[in-house]
Amino acid sequence: MTQLYNFFNSSTSYRVRIALALKGLPYEYLPINLRKQEQREAGYVTLNPSAGVPLLVEGELRLSQSLAIIDYLDATHPEPRLLPADALARARVLEVSQAIACDIHPVNNMRILRYLQDVLGATEAQKNAWYAHWIQEGLTAVEALLARHGHGEYCFGDAPTLADCCLVPQVANAQRMNCDLAPYARVLRVYEHCSAQPAFQAAAPSRQPDFSK
Amino acid sequence: MTQLYNFFNSSTSYRVRIALALKGLPYEYLPINLRKQEQREAGYVTLNPSAGVPLLVEGELRLSQSLAIIDYLDATHPEPRLLPADALARARVLEVSQAIACDIHPVNNMRILRYLQDVLGATEAQKNAWYAHWIQEGLTAVEALLARHGHGEYCFGDAPTLADCCLVPQVANAQRMNCDLAPYARVLRVYEHCSAQPAFQAAAPSRQPDFSK
Repeated sequence: MTQLYNFFNSSTSYRVRIALALKGLPYEYLPINLRKQEQREAGYVTLNPSAGVPLLVEGELRLSQSLAIIDYLDATHPEPRLLPADALARARVLEVSQAIACDIHPVNNMRILRYLQDVLGATEAQKNAWYAHWIQEGLTAVEALLARHGHGEYCFGDAPTLADCCLVPQVANAQRMNCDLAPYARVLRVYEHCSAQPAFQAAAPSRQPDFSK
Repeated sequence: MTQLYNFFNSSTSYRVRIALALKGLPYEYLPINLRKQEQREAGYVTLNPSAGVPLLVEGELRLSQSLAIIDYLDATHPEPRLLPADALARARVLEVSQAIACDIHPVNNMRILRYLQDVLGATEAQKNAWYAHWIQEGLTAVEALLARHGHGEYCFGDAPTLADCCLVPQVANAQRMNCDLAPYARVLRVYEHCSAQPAFQAAAPSRQPDFSK
């Protein structure tokens, strides 16, 4: 059976949970508590040298990196497709996905905020300003890309894609961090539409077995 | 004709230049000077709302995000393939590519170092330590992934893939920043092999029309 090492509050884990739920694939949920730094424990690093979550396990396969995992799931379980076959449609989905996965999320994740605080002595206010700054830069780009190329109730059309798997966890995090999201009307509309769908609901942090406040 | 807005010293631009050179695709080189913040000028932001480089232009198409661009080029100009067709081989290539493109590069790029300095008042020594820290975390993972799954003279086999397009610019940057790369023997072997190939050489920063010290 498919296993997923993940953490309820990790947005890269959340992306993969959405993809698994959209495809209706059952999996064993194996929690790795990032707050307790369990991802750095020797036994886990042996499984996943990237020392992070998520990690997909299927038989002998161990695969890290959320977008690589979703691409793999899309190849091995193609229904419903999360990456379009058409080159241009696919490029648009990847562009928005990577605007989130490369330009927003990596700069704002837990290990970065921890370094800012522990090594550079950043205050809570400075960490919050850092977070809000990259959200603002990144979502401005995503909003503009969706305004130009997006259509339908999801990012691209009337069915979810990888772009929605990336957008929802990022917006949820930004809300949790009290960022002002009013300027990103189309981003918010997509977020609200997705949040009403059962697969996205099943993947939400509050629904996971390791959820805690 | 294909056009590429890019900057000699941008490692995401460098990735796309390698892919274009490997595929033998000619293109017009349109420099955007990141040191002068030309990527934020209104005319350019109209073209590319992400306000960054690279940006691929083909007729009406404007596409940002280096990995989305390379995926698109691979779909439209499939020879030589940079992303394997086989799901598992492809997953391994994407895993290493994203370990670089999501976990290393975004945290160490120019806008981040500038924020650390200008907003948080980080010293030169603190910026260098930040850079070296994320290189060390990230390349440790890449080295372990290549030790497990890599083979041949490139990251994966005897022909270049997207993983090599990502690895070479990242290692070049780390060398420029004087990081200790001795622990990453396999990463360095791949880097040295690639650096001897004409397509990788043609894409190098020092060979670009906007190169300056």
